Amino acid sequence: MIDAGLLDPLAQGTRARELTSDAAFVSAMVETEVALTGALVDAGLAPEWMREVCAGLADAGSAGLDLEKLAEESRGGGNPVIPLLRHLSAVAEQLRDGASDYLHVGATSQDILDTAAMLTARAVCEEVLAQLRQVGAALAALAQTHRATPMAGRTLGQHASPTTFGFVVAGWLDGVTGAITALDRTNHMLPLQYGGSVGTLDALEQWTSARGGTAPSIAAAFAARLGLRLPPISWHTTRAPVLAMASALAGAMAAIGVIAIDVGVLARTEIAELAEGRSGTGSGEGGSSAMPHKNNPVAAVLISAAARRSPHLLGSLYASALSEDQRPMGAWHAEWLPLRDLERTAVASASAAAALVSHLVVDEKRMSANLELTGGRIESERIATVLAASMGRRAAFARVEEASGQPDDSALAALLPSHGRGYVGAGSGDYALAAIDRVVEAFRAVDPARAARSARSAPS
Amino acid sequence: MIDAGLLDPLAQGTRARELTSDAAFVSAMVETEVALTGALVDAGLAPEWMREVCAGLADAGSAGLDLEKLAEESRGGGNPVIPLLRHLSAVAEQLRDGASDYLHVGATSQDILDTAAMLTARAVCEEVLAQLRQVGAALAALAQTHRATPMAGRTLGQHASPTTFGFVVAGWLDGVTGAITALDRTNHMLPLQYGGSVGTLDALEQWTSARGGTAPSIAAAFAARLGLRLPPISWHTTRAPVLAMASALAGAMAAIGVIAIDVGVLARTEIAELAEGRSGTGSGEGGSSAMPHKNNPVAAVLISAAARRSPHLLGSLYASALSEDQRPMGAWHAEWLPLRDLERTAVASASAAAALVSHLVVDEKRMSANLELTGGRIESERIATVLAASMGRRAAFARVEEASGQPDDSALAALLPSHGRGYVGAGSGDYALAAIDRVVEAFRAVDPARAARSARSAPS
Amino acid sequence: MIDAGLLDPLAQGTRARELTSDAAFVSAMVETEVALTGALVDAGLAPEWMREVCAGLADAGSAGLDLEKLAEESRGGGNPVIPLLRHLSAVAEQLRDGASDYLHVGATSQDILDTAAMLTARAVCEEVLAQLRQVGAALAALAQTHRATPMAGRTLGQHASPTTFGFVVAGWLDGVTGAITALDRTNHMLPLQYGGSVGTLDALEQWTSARGGTAPSIAAAFAARLGLRLPPISWHTTRAPVLAMASALAGAMAAIGVIAIDVGVLARTEIAELAEGRSGTGSGEGGSSAMPHKNNPVAAVLISAAARRSPHLLGSLYASALSEDQRPMGAWHAEWLPLRDLERTAVASASAAAALVSHLVVDEKRMSANLELTGGRIESERIATVLAASMGRRAAFARVEEASGQPDDSALAALLPSHGRGYVGAGSGDYALAAIDRVVEAFRAVDPARAARSARSAPS
Amino acid sequence: MIDAGLLDPLAQGTRARELTSDAAFVSAMVETEVALTGALVDAGLAPEWMREVCAGLADAGSAGLDLEKLAEESRGGGNPVIPLLRHLSAVAEQLRDGASDYLHVGATSQDILDTAAMLTARAVCEEVLAQLRQVGAALAALAQTHRATPMAGRTLGQHASPTTFGFVVAGWLDGVTGAITALDRTNHMLPLQYGGSVGTLDALEQWTSARGGTAPSIAAAFAARLGLRLPPISWHTTRAPVLAMASALAGAMAAIGVIAIDVGVLARTEIAELAEGRSGTGSGEGGSSAMPHKNNPVAAVLISAAARRSPHLLGSLYASALSEDQRPMGAWHAEWLPLRDLERTAVASASAAAALVSHLVVDEKRMSANLELTGGRIESERIATVLAASMGRRAAFARVEEASGQPDDSALAALLPSHGRGYVGAGSGDYALAAIDRVVEAFRAVDPARAARSARSAPS
Repeated sequence: MIDAGLLDPLAQGTRARELTSDAAFVSAMVETEVALTGALVDAGLAPEWMREVCAGLADAGSAGLDLEKLAEESRGGGNPVIPLLRHLSAVAEQLRDGASDYLHVGATSQDILDTAAMLTARAVCEEVLAQLRQVGAALAALAQTHRATPMAGRTLGQHASPTTFGFVVAGWLDGVTGAITALDRTNHMLPLQYGGSVGTLDALEQWTSARGGTAPSIAAAFAARLGLRLPPISWHTTRAPVLAMASALAGAMAAIGVIAIDVGVLARTEIAELAEGRSGTGSGEGGSSAMPHKNNPVAAVLISAAARRSPHLLGSLYASALSEDQRPMGAWHAEWLPLRDLERTAVASASAAAALVSHLVVDEKRMSANLELTGGRIESERIATVLAASMGRRAAFARVEEASGQPDDSALAALLPSHGRGYVGAGSGDYALAAIDRVVEAFRAVDPARAARSARSAPS
Repeated sequence: MIDAGLLDPLAQGTRARELTSDAAFVSAMVETEVALTGALVDAGLAPEWMREVCAGLADAGSAGLDLEKLAEESRGGGNPVIPLLRHLSAVAEQLRDGASDYLHVGATSQDILDTAAMLTARAVCEEVLAQLRQVGAALAALAQTHRATPMAGRTLGQHASPTTFGFVVAGWLDGVTGAITALDRTNHMLPLQYGGSVGTLDALEQWTSARGGTAPSIAAAFAARLGLRLPPISWHTTRAPVLAMASALAGAMAAIGVIAIDVGVLARTEIAELAEGRSGTGSGEGGSSAMPHKNNPVAAVLISAAARRSPHLLGSLYASALSEDQRPMGAWHAEWLPLRDLERTAVASASAAAALVSHLVVDEKRMSANLELTGGRIESERIATVLAASMGRRAAFARVEEASGQPDDSALAALLPSHGRGYVGAGSGDYALAAIDRVVEAFRAVDPARAARSARSAPS
Repeated sequence: MIDAGLLDPLAQGTRARELTSDAAFVSAMVETEVALTGALVDAGLAPEWMREVCAGLADAGSAGLDLEKLAEESRGGGNPVIPLLRHLSAVAEQLRDGASDYLHVGATSQDILDTAAMLTARAVCEEVLAQLRQVGAALAALAQTHRATPMAGRTLGQHASPTTFGFVVAGWLDGVTGAITALDRTNHMLPLQYGGSVGTLDALEQWTSARGGTAPSIAAAFAARLGLRLPPISWHTTRAPVLAMASALAGAMAAIGVIAIDVGVLARTEIAELAEGRSGTGSGEGGSSAMPHKNNPVAAVLISAAARRSPHLLGSLYASALSEDQRPMGAWHAEWLPLRDLERTAVASASAAAALVSHLVVDEKRMSANLELTGGRIESERIATVLAASMGRRAAFARVEEASGQPDDSALAALLPSHGRGYVGAGSGDYALAAIDRVVEAFRAVDPARAARSARSAPS
Repeated sequence: MIDAGLLDPLAQGTRARELTSDAAFVSAMVETEVALTGALVDAGLAPEWMREVCAGLADAGSAGLDLEKLAEESRGGGNPVIPLLRHLSAVAEQLRDGASDYLHVGATSQDILDTAAMLTARAVCEEVLAQLRQVGAALAALAQTHRATPMAGRTLGQHASPTTFGFVVAGWLDGVTGAITALDRTNHMLPLQYGGSVGTLDALEQWTSARGGTAPSIAAAFAARLGLRLPPISWHTTRAPVLAMASALAGAMAAIGVIAIDVGVLARTEIAELAEGRSGTGSGEGGSSAMPHKNNPVAAVLISAAARRSPHLLGSLYASALSEDQRPMGAWHAEWLPLRDLERTAVASASAAAALVSHLVVDEKRMSANLELTGGRIESERIATVLAASMGRRAAFARVEEASGQPDDSALAALLPSHGRGYVGAGSGDYALAAIDRVVEAFRAVDPARAARSARSAPS
């Protein structure tokens, strides 16, 4: 009756499921309820002895829970907060009579569930960021190692012009750096949700008015305890925080997906410029149940598969943002599963990508050999550019086009006898090298670990 | 580390998770492997004693399995078939030395996984069909009971013209009947997958050529044992069977979603023509954690949420159909999770809808009262049509438009003194009544239970 | 201010834009209005002289229309029917005083727009079907020509086992045949829409009751005139007809997309087994603005691009099916543009695919040469199967796996000295050949032109 | 053969089509080519007389173009740059012999098309921003005017607790402010695309090396001329700039969509708290072809429809980001149409929303009257909170739940005799009022016009 991850091999061996499991979500909800009560104690609106109850709830809140029972009971009210609150109230009362009166004050179910979702999202974002930084560090090293390793640049599947593997990797790294920047920004903006039944915190006002204290100060203390941003207004039907975070995760999966897709292509039997190194994490990597010789690029395949799914998960979330009233008839509920799926698959993808790029096997000889496949035609853009100096752009283009169309390779070679064949300089011009450096530098600027290392090694 | 359904309240109390769990999927894979081996025995290509081994595998195959371990081991090859086969082989060898040689003959991982997916799909389709038939039966009864119950027809959120509740329900039923037809057709077309590494069954040919028997006959016996269609060719990268089935499920969710959305609207506090009856399945149905008075249309809300997600799941599956080569780099893997999610949510939605429509509370008085809200303007189409006989269509339309715009209701009434106000006949014309009958009849034609009942009650 | 197709090169030279242009849609709306009026005349409910007016409207209805003005005027009511009706009424009155009273009787805007959409859909389906049949005919010929042309079968990007090009093409054809079947079925089910303001045809009842005749008979005559199916009930908010048709179109694009993606892969410089032949329809096919030597597989690329978009268009349509009330607040309006886009791109894709497969250049020698790339490892499945007869399945698999992992090719060869290397029989076993025949036969069964040719050539 | 906007009524009367038409796109491509050539002149690498040619191209480049012919010719190379360049070259040569040699230097088609797309995107973003600021200004005024206008807060379609209309509007405004912030950020980051055939600018290096000057300096001058950001590396297959901009547009449509959906709900006949005022832009606003009395919330409906489509367009763009090689086989081409559609619909939606909120008709009396519909039950949360002070939270909740369930309203009233009924204070507590102020202030901070006005009116 459970999902153990059978259809999600990518997540295996990563923190993907641990960070997004039902148990993790329940823990986040308990943490949220406890922080709200703690904020009341901080403000002097709940008795000091509630600190101990809070500690007890934090410890016992989720430990003793029967998740399947909780799931069953969530059907009645349409969400798991109501049965969870019932459970927490019972635990609190066992710890101290009357303790449950200080739980869930002023809150509605969505306050708890949304806030717990933000806590979960933060844990997810931080893991994805950590993995992306590993990806980036490995790519930065690859880009520099291979800054002058020539390989065929391909467009529309055809050899186009020479490039270097370092330049290609720099393109991948540029995507990863952008993903880190976007994810880091959204991660710091994750907000508390706390508005009560219709967002106005009216019930909380009522409650505090009889006891001293104010609703705004409680909300601020609540947010501070969780380390979340205090938003200007409750956002029950303004889902921008979810969309921004989800867009950043989907953007990260696009950046990673491009790498995986390229690895898959370059690992093709006929191309064979890259191969997945084995990470040593398990036997049977890349194996097949039918073909004993197979060495499949499994990580690339599974990351690609995840990247293909993410646009639909993101689209589902944007559609869920179309909420009516103060809390909607279904739009909010439609958000839960695709958000979890996107988070889970982002952690899994980023983790797998970190392993993939760290163990990538680069075959420079094969890159070199493949450059020869078109008998020099891959240099047609450069040849035409050189010829253009003497005969004009259009004439040069036409001449090279004509020569390229000859079955014999020598026609093209004859156009520019002194040019020789040699890809040493290709992709290693001022722009290309500077681009690699700029991209690596930009990555380092978003990698605090590296920044810290640099700081430590600086002369005092 | 597990998903217990916490974020999927709709599935609670239904067979949704049971039919689509990891355990169910493993059972289907075991059933597939056993059927393949059984087909070899049937053809005399495996020894008779393998029948006993097959029986043992069927019994023990999935029972003793540690699903989490299987999930972990699926990472290496990128799918769960390889470790499952390892496990089955070990069990088979324990039962009889050499037995494992008759497992997985000629097959590749995708053969097993796809076939198991079709078995799972069949179980899902049949449960959805059963639930849809319950929905349909309840709607057929409602449509007839309320064939002359007047209510306001609404377009673009505004009162438009009178209709009857029976006619509205007939519209819902038409959608459900269509969904049943489509799902039934696709369910009968679910195919076996069996092609070996590249679809040609070459290895099987090799195997049978040394033993007698032919590949086509094995494939036919394999399909027959599972009750699946034998396709003209393996469909590793021709995903039409998956797309057809998924489209039918998504279509069913659209048909159901329309009902849920309408119930949600008509249950609005200001409209209050419908309410969700309580099914008695649990306490706290429709409750809120903050507002003691709430009686939320929870089933309608959760079904609507599911219906909002399904187009994105379907889109994800169509995108996954874009496969390259003989088996693709990710497209196939991207199919697994959205397919399961769609199946699971279809079972949950259909089941919840069956309960919802069976317990629907209809407030005829409120329907009647709401008809009066526009001071007769809701009849403007009919009034204009009557007037058109004497003054022409355009003039009549202009006169009624002008009168409708007066703040005083009497201007419109004065246009047609003899018309009175009365919605008795509205929505109960020849066409409307005949439409209800046609729709109910069409439903009965796709409801074999009803057909069976009719047959039994026929005079001998 | 117009879209001339600049960003839609795939549609150029096809009937895609012609069949789905604004002008085509206006023509379909005029045809719908005229058919409705004609049905009244047929029933004796409108004067005989209206036949002439109808003829005049059919001729002049759309010819003199300023589409941009019509588009502007559609903003007020939210759809183009209101201003079109105004225009048609004026034309009718010019032809005969009082003629406009017989226009749009009993209808609401959605009746006209939906029915026009079905007429447009029919024209689109028929063109797509015609193009798919051309695709199928070309594939059937290719499958037979190359039934014994060996090529490498590839899975997860790696050489897997040998197959034949004919078998690969048969897989493509299977997809196309399925698409034809599905599209043909849905094309014959396209329904009339006619329900009046809330679907009950109440106003029409009112109108006919004063004149004789009945609403059902008018509706039947209306449908008959247009050759559309008469549905059991109006389907303003039951969008199954749209979803079924759109699913069939998206399914067709998936079937075509798989071909295009495979062509793109097999045309890669390193693989080079296929190339796009030039159809002679224009200069510059496959050219580049920067690289004179490029010969890009442009058709494959553009068809692939279209196939990538279609799942999102289909998803958008399924989401639009979630309608509330008797006609919804936006769901219906959201259907128009993605439906047109999907139709347009389906016509364009099918047409381009017909040209692509008709001019496909097959390099058998290259296919043969590529088979040698793995030093015989591509036969590991067959070798293991042969060895299994003597040493058992698992031992054989292990031995072949070990030998395949040796850098030297001879280790694998030594396992089965008598096996030799030769792919002649690969992919040409009983199953594979029979599969090709079955697939070709199944295609012929859905190709009426072929059936007609067969009938003609049969002995009398 | 053209699209005049017939199926896109929302765009009528806005700049949506003008900014995204084929003509606009061609102008942007011409502007891009001219800027590249201009950068060469600036660097002294093209003769001074090319300035005049550039001026001539800018003037004549797109004026004389036959868009339909250009579209046709784009089929061969798969994009419109090749035929456009042919046209521009011819024009340039007419202006001065040899002038065409200075066109398109170092560039590939994608450089021109992507850069033109960024210019188009900038124009779109700026128009959307301008319209969103109008929306925001109108909402800020509404929020303040109605900060104490009580209305029913609704959750899951049911009356929940009282709120104020000002608070509801503040929620809308919060969404709009967030959308402005996100769109403004992405708008300033739109990058130049310039990399040549495989992104390395190698051909440009070749060209400049013979003439002096460097590739990086040319690229910088090119970007500066267009006012675009110079990216660290070309981004042919790193589509983050497109995704960021598209996410911001889709986010804006979600923020606007929520407003439209709420207006649609609150304009329902039974609720009638809001109505669309008529903007005076056209006759027939809100009319129907069948029902003379209808006053449909057309703007809300059309904006909702657009908002429903945008998640699928965004999903399509994220899917298009999955590119392989140095330029992909279809992924890039798949981006063009959904990007245009999203941009067009964003401009149309924002413009329509600006008109909608500026003319919104608020019926305070109806809001007040609707609050009475539940006989006081809408205050259950507050009553329970008050009672909780004396009897504890759970007991209070149970008592209020029980009293709310009584058919007679007096049971609930009796629980708290002194409480009376009065919603004056509801939604007007410290938190709610402060939230409105915070949201308005946050909007003003992103509204430069307002900032400018403030600055002007400050004392010197």
